[in-house]
Amino acid sequence: MPQGQKVYDMFLSPMFDHTSTVSSPGSQYLMRRSAWMAVTCLLTGHTPQFMLTAVTFTGYTPQEIVGGIADSEVLVSELLAQAGYRNKIIGKWHLGHRPQYLPLRHGFHEWFGAPNCHFGPYDNKATPNIPVYNGSDMMGRYYEDFAISRASGESNLTQLYVREALDFIDRQAAAGRPFFLYWAPDATHGPLYASRGFLGTSRRGLYGDAVRELDDGVGRILSRLRDRGLDTNTLVFFTSDNGAAMVSRSKGGSNGPFLCGKQTTFEGGMREPAIAWWPSRIQPGQISHQLSTVMDLFSTALDLAVAVPPSDRVYDGTSLLPTLLNGTEVDRPVFYYRGDELMAVRYGLYKAHFWTWTNGEDERSKGIDFCRGEDVPGVTTMQQVNHTDSPLLFHLGRDPGERYSIKPKSSEYKQAMRKLEDLVAVHRAGLLPGEPQFNMCDSAVMNWAPAGCEKLGRCLKGPKSKPYKCPWPH
Amino acid sequence: MPQGQKVYDMFLSPMFDHTSTVSSPGSQYLMRRSAWMAVTCLLTGHTPQFMLTAVTFTGYTPQEIVGGIADSEVLVSELLAQAGYRNKIIGKWHLGHRPQYLPLRHGFHEWFGAPNCHFGPYDNKATPNIPVYNGSDMMGRYYEDFAISRASGESNLTQLYVREALDFIDRQAAAGRPFFLYWAPDATHGPLYASRGFLGTSRRGLYGDAVRELDDGVGRILSRLRDRGLDTNTLVFFTSDNGAAMVSRSKGGSNGPFLCGKQTTFEGGMREPAIAWWPSRIQPGQISHQLSTVMDLFSTALDLAVAVPPSDRVYDGTSLLPTLLNGTEVDRPVFYYRGDELMAVRYGLYKAHFWTWTNGEDERSKGIDFCRGEDVPGVTTMQQVNHTDSPLLFHLGRDPGERYSIKPKSSEYKQAMRKLEDLVAVHRAGLLPGEPQFNMCDSAVMNWAPAGCEKLGRCLKGPKSKPYKCPWPH
Repeated sequence: MPQGQKVYDMFLSPMFDHTSTVSSPGSQYLMRRSAWMAVTCLLTGHTPQFMLTAVTFTGYTPQEIVGGIADSEVLVSELLAQAGYRNKIIGKWHLGHRPQYLPLRHGFHEWFGAPNCHFGPYDNKATPNIPVYNGSDMMGRYYEDFAISRASGESNLTQLYVREALDFIDRQAAAGRPFFLYWAPDATHGPLYASRGFLGTSRRGLYGDAVRELDDGVGRILSRLRDRGLDTNTLVFFTSDNGAAMVSRSKGGSNGPFLCGKQTTFEGGMREPAIAWWPSRIQPGQISHQLSTVMDLFSTALDLAVAVPPSDRVYDGTSLLPTLLNGTEVDRPVFYYRGDELMAVRYGLYKAHFWTWTNGEDERSKGIDFCRGEDVPGVTTMQQVNHTDSPLLFHLGRDPGERYSIKPKSSEYKQAMRKLEDLVAVHRAGLLPGEPQFNMCDSAVMNWAPAGCEKLGRCLKGPKSKPYKCPWPH
Repeated sequence: MPQGQKVYDMFLSPMFDHTSTVSSPGSQYLMRRSAWMAVTCLLTGHTPQFMLTAVTFTGYTPQEIVGGIADSEVLVSELLAQAGYRNKIIGKWHLGHRPQYLPLRHGFHEWFGAPNCHFGPYDNKATPNIPVYNGSDMMGRYYEDFAISRASGESNLTQLYVREALDFIDRQAAAGRPFFLYWAPDATHGPLYASRGFLGTSRRGLYGDAVRELDDGVGRILSRLRDRGLDTNTLVFFTSDNGAAMVSRSKGGSNGPFLCGKQTTFEGGMREPAIAWWPSRIQPGQISHQLSTVMDLFSTALDLAVAVPPSDRVYDGTSLLPTLLNGTEVDRPVFYYRGDELMAVRYGLYKAHFWTWTNGEDERSKGIDFCRGEDVPGVTTMQQVNHTDSPLLFHLGRDPGERYSIKPKSSEYKQAMRKLEDLVAVHRAGLLPGEPQFNMCDSAVMNWAPAGCEKLGRCLKGPKSKPYKCPWPH
């Protein structure tokens, strides 16, 4: 662990998966595996309900999706650009892959990476392989120009993303410009991979190898900041957008004591630690229990850059600077959504579930299981169970694994639920429904012919447009 | 975490639960919650099969048990006494509570504590409260003279055990004598308690309060060693005898990623971390993956004291000094027993289960569950399932939670099982059945009239002797 770090118990709602850096006057953001909700939350600073009503947990923006980030949304990248920052995203974008939605149209000056996950390999007939962009043009495709061996698990991708980050830091250091680097490598997302030097080096299989390579990459980025004399004026923020994906079985990692995994609203799905690093400003070795969300990173970045967001909308995040710099901890509610359903709420150490759901019997029979190996009767329900009349209440201090619900007749239950219900009422009163972006799908919108494909002679011919309602199972 | 520490991934078979210190020429052992198998293993250096065939995981030596440690067993305390050490046990003994089995008859010079767990309160009619001894005489009973409030969870016991440890260290420092302190406080064993200053101080309820008090106590013991100039010639070894007791529900702690809990042969039941502390000899901040067992502490202590055990028996432990002092790591098998059944074996990162069993349906219906919240089909079986013909094989690196068994047809399976079966064959060939000590029970042998009760006027009248076969459910 690097010197100058501050580890804290960050709560992420909605789920996120970022490695990031912000600072004033020099700042980096490094994100990876950016799930739609997390990215929209991070970049817009408010819950997707303001903007998207049909976002879902499977919101990894598959290629069929017609929608994307609206021009009316003001992203942190746009506000930082106005404040004089040079912005780069390295890795996954996930806010829509059609031309009008791409990063360079939304405040980023540079981009090296892909609009979607590296899933595949596809056949370029029913589904095109995901393109990799450098700036506004594609420069190739995963599995074709950017090799990923499904047999050996070997791929150079993380090395490539690290190299891009180091190059960007070098250039900004030379120019003496403040910068915002949003680093979102694909690792440790399945299908897993690692470069040759890391393959077989961990006790934890390919997953461990990928984590080791990511860790090494972050270390190299921190070293480069030190070497360029940028460490004392750069905030580096590292975290993840969701818990381990139990659905990936032994290749998805572990959520330790927390219940279930990614795609659920149990702690294993949404709670993540985070590390903030800022030598000279953040006291090393501290641990904070401040409950936070990715939306706080939006507010934190603007706070550092002394940038002011438009006043015509509500922001759900709050700046983390008091916590990071002074160790302040305050109680605040967080809301757990699945689709547009408020599944649960947490305040202090109490968490109430209004709905419980893992995934259905039909999927389990196909080996898909978000709670593999876990079974808490009445909690890890295979049906969508409505507990609104008598929410399931847990004390996450005494019971971080959400196994022992508090008796509804107890005074502890009544007192905690009163507070939680009040917070939910205030939250609901402030919600404005947004324009759904994830409802419509169309095979014609896939990455058949990304910008720049002509120059490379790499354009593919897609099918005719045939829009349909997206069939989200979760 | 103290300076000079070495954290390592110690594997404990059979389960143990110790806080200990050994050194040359000054040495301390501090154990707590000493389960029978663990204690016999630690103190004798070989598996209980040599000595006890009917030992079980519920071997917390309930008062009904007629048996105890045999005079023919040579304990580490006896060997260290011969080597000039002054030995004290503080806390629980668990090797039999009848007079011939008590610590002062087996190599310890001093004892402050109890022969059994602090379970209760009992009624002193059907069952006497557990006595607390100072030396060879009782000085009172739990709940009567040593208050434990079941209502508030308040008790001074940990403070009392810490004070005894500090006093012992002071006296040995003054006398300039090498010493062996085996510190086995009742915390954090249920029924949980903490002293007033720690009650309500953690986010984790009474369990967290108890852990915090134990942690604070260990810190005070280390400080005292420093203050007396004994830190550089004292090895302190801290560990636990088994995983969190899921059966205690939210009051039993958590096993993080490991499957099930205490009383089972899954990793959650038997795997524990350990901390070794020896400023100037052990390099601080190291992590070792050396797989070890409590039996190794027997061999380590003798190695340090240059004491030689009798050559007429086999010892299953090996000295940990090469690991602790030089970072050496070697592969070695460990065997997981439940009763006298070999349930599983581990070598390297492979673990094979010959039998699986959690606990039965009848107990579950009463709320007793060693795997609460966990359900891995075919693994966490409620029946005793014999897999001997095709053992369940797990790779504990890729799959520390024992969820994804390796396919029996794979070459990985065949290769790993060949090695494991060979190791088991060698192990079985060297086993000698011992004299069962846990088979016979009798209410007359309970702690009705411990030595010293007459002086205090605290003797109770027990029932007439009526021996019966102990009804062990596990």
